[in-house]
Amino acid sequence: MNLSQNISSETPQQHVESRARRAKDAAVRLRTASTKIKNDALHAMADALLAQQDEIFAANARDLQTGRERGLSDALLDRLKLNEARVEAMADGCRQVAALPDPIGEMAGGRTLPNGLRLSQVRVPLGVVGVIYESRPNVTVDAAILCLKAGNAVLLRGGSEAIHSNLLLARIISRAAQEAGAPADCIQAIETTDRAATQHLVTLNGLVDLVIPRGGDGLKKSLSAVATVPLIFAAAGNCHVYVDESADLQMASGIAFNAKVQRPSTCNAMETLLVHRAVAPQFLPALAKRLCEAGVELRGDERAREASSIMQAATEADWDTEFLALTLAVRVVDDVDEAIAHIGRHGSAHSEAIVTRDYARAEKFCAEVDSAALYVNASTRFTDGNEFGLGAEVGISTQKLHARGPMGLESLTTTKYIVRGDGQVRA
Amino acid sequence: MNLSQNISSETPQQHVESRARRAKDAAVRLRTASTKIKNDALHAMADALLAQQDEIFAANARDLQTGRERGLSDALLDRLKLNEARVEAMADGCRQVAALPDPIGEMAGGRTLPNGLRLSQVRVPLGVVGVIYESRPNVTVDAAILCLKAGNAVLLRGGSEAIHSNLLLARIISRAAQEAGAPADCIQAIETTDRAATQHLVTLNGLVDLVIPRGGDGLKKSLSAVATVPLIFAAAGNCHVYVDESADLQMASGIAFNAKVQRPSTCNAMETLLVHRAVAPQFLPALAKRLCEAGVELRGDERAREASSIMQAATEADWDTEFLALTLAVRVVDDVDEAIAHIGRHGSAHSEAIVTRDYARAEKFCAEVDSAALYVNASTRFTDGNEFGLGAEVGISTQKLHARGPMGLESLTTTKYIVRGDGQVRA
Repeated sequence: MNLSQNISSETPQQHVESRARRAKDAAVRLRTASTKIKNDALHAMADALLAQQDEIFAANARDLQTGRERGLSDALLDRLKLNEARVEAMADGCRQVAALPDPIGEMAGGRTLPNGLRLSQVRVPLGVVGVIYESRPNVTVDAAILCLKAGNAVLLRGGSEAIHSNLLLARIISRAAQEAGAPADCIQAIETTDRAATQHLVTLNGLVDLVIPRGGDGLKKSLSAVATVPLIFAAAGNCHVYVDESADLQMASGIAFNAKVQRPSTCNAMETLLVHRAVAPQFLPALAKRLCEAGVELRGDERAREASSIMQAATEADWDTEFLALTLAVRVVDDVDEAIAHIGRHGSAHSEAIVTRDYARAEKFCAEVDSAALYVNASTRFTDGNEFGLGAEVGISTQKLHARGPMGLESLTTTKYIVRGDGQVRA
Repeated sequence: MNLSQNISSETPQQHVESRARRAKDAAVRLRTASTKIKNDALHAMADALLAQQDEIFAANARDLQTGRERGLSDALLDRLKLNEARVEAMADGCRQVAALPDPIGEMAGGRTLPNGLRLSQVRVPLGVVGVIYESRPNVTVDAAILCLKAGNAVLLRGGSEAIHSNLLLARIISRAAQEAGAPADCIQAIETTDRAATQHLVTLNGLVDLVIPRGGDGLKKSLSAVATVPLIFAAAGNCHVYVDESADLQMASGIAFNAKVQRPSTCNAMETLLVHRAVAPQFLPALAKRLCEAGVELRGDERAREASSIMQAATEADWDTEFLALTLAVRVVDDVDEAIAHIGRHGSAHSEAIVTRDYARAEKFCAEVDSAALYVNASTRFTDGNEFGLGAEVGISTQKLHARGPMGLESLTTTKYIVRGDGQVRA
């Protein structure tokens, strides 16, 4: 694929805008597409991905080669890499989304009004959705299939590290969808990773209805400042586990270990552990040892380090840091109120857990902490669309409007009112 | 009230920011306030408004005096004016909102997951809501009571024409709410109408959760460009009525007349009438005469003027104009497809009606027009929170995210997940 050929005569802004115009046209046709056409397209996309594995691996090899030349870490190269299992997982994803109920056309509410008007609130697509993402090329497919099922045209803007993989994946699924009867241009990749193009995308009011940036704080800041299109950030999280004085300490150890270690790079992993001072001396030494053995670097406040000498000293910045790695900040608190206050000050309103046997404190924690998901006696790692039974996930929103927490298909829709009458006029 | 005294030592930005900080503190306390406290506060506010009518009239007289000196039109002066009936209406509003079900604490969903986790999605307040509005001082009370009932602290920023009325109303209801047990500072007015203050308000991420600008296109543009806080515009609308060839023409006349004339200054009033060419010669002359007699100025395209000579020639700009007055653009179209295309090109996605006897065209119009409310055989004037049975209305949203159409109490809330477990960790 010759990238420069496609966009040689256009500025990055013109390229994005022309894609957005085509997406808007596609969205108009997709708005009334039947569930059957959308599901046929999803199955065709799965077949096409499996049939064209060799080309996918070849494109991916170019990205990996460039990545090695640029000195990407092994962890990043692993995220980038596509193999048979990962292509199969993408194809499975297509079929799973085909099997989900179609959110479009759902009657979200309605009533007959006293004047006889029949009011119904119908779920409809948003229109054109932009998705901005980083290294993992499977997001190309994941984002496209969810947008398609919800009746939206999608503009995919992946990271430069995976550009060849992303563009080929987009081309394969776009062609398969169209051959199965979906409108042309309902899946399009932005063929440049130029920052000006991304910043232009988030100002295309009237063409683009929603942009979902999936990435770190840098991306968030650079887009927030310029965006006029609505954004929902599928952002990282600074999650907390609070171990109350009444906790079952064995349960608390299991939850804390799971929340930190099971998959530390995810947004729902714990970043700060808060421990009631009454149980810190008994609880922290054994847990710290267990975490250390799993490779976790511990950074404690003064009281935490009194309880366990294997911790380094935490800095003030540690409380605000999303490590997304095997690093954990630990703080000893006087009571549940101090834990709640700490989370309010430092948290990112994603997921927080309390481990306790005390009913009133469990309820207080859930009522007073203003985060997307609150847990009593369970790991924060469950904040996930699949775990929550939504079937699929576009990302996890830590903002309050439109969607909060794991975003399923419904978060890619809106509603409209349809009002059927017999000549009613307003008095 | 000496305005300059209150803010003399602060810049407008500092004033807004200090109010927002106090609002955030109030929001934390209001988040867990009982329904009883909120309703007691609403009733106390109603009593206080009635008890302090004379002071309200005195403050209002100052605004009217200034308005007359500045040469405000009679229509604007009328909007500004408070009399006994209007104060009573505000007090009634308080009691009506008290009588509405409390949206907070509603279980919006939930299930027990296969691993035994009990998941519930609970409706909670947004936090701090800013409302920016223009001349009518009753919005001070309307906005405050809806925010309070939904558990939000509110920052009220009214227009300069009504500043004395607005500040006094805010002070009266704020004091009454606090005396009835609501947190201090849960209702605050911004004491400056400086534009820099408004622009600062919409960038206070972390302090302000939502800003609702209620006003014209100028306000919309000046805020969109700078806002980083989520905005929902309660905007005007460019609404359409399409009279199909199969319409009951008497019904069509009644609907068109009502949609234009009954209250032309509202956002759900018709601005453009589209008429099928087959019925234009029969339909338009009588309707045009009836509208003219009601004082409506008609601006038709060529075919409309062939049918009725009393129309002026419409310009291209007329199709995009929200007249909000007794002015109507009229266009003759070839069929329902041309009507749908016209609305897609020129509409503001607010409210549109089709008048028809044809089932398929009615369904097509509702499916293909992408507006907040679609009507078959009824006036667009019904797009309204009270008419739709929402009990009260913050405004009407023509955007797609979070809330679309009339915004009731629910649009001032968000949800959070509460997950109760017994030690579950993720495998």
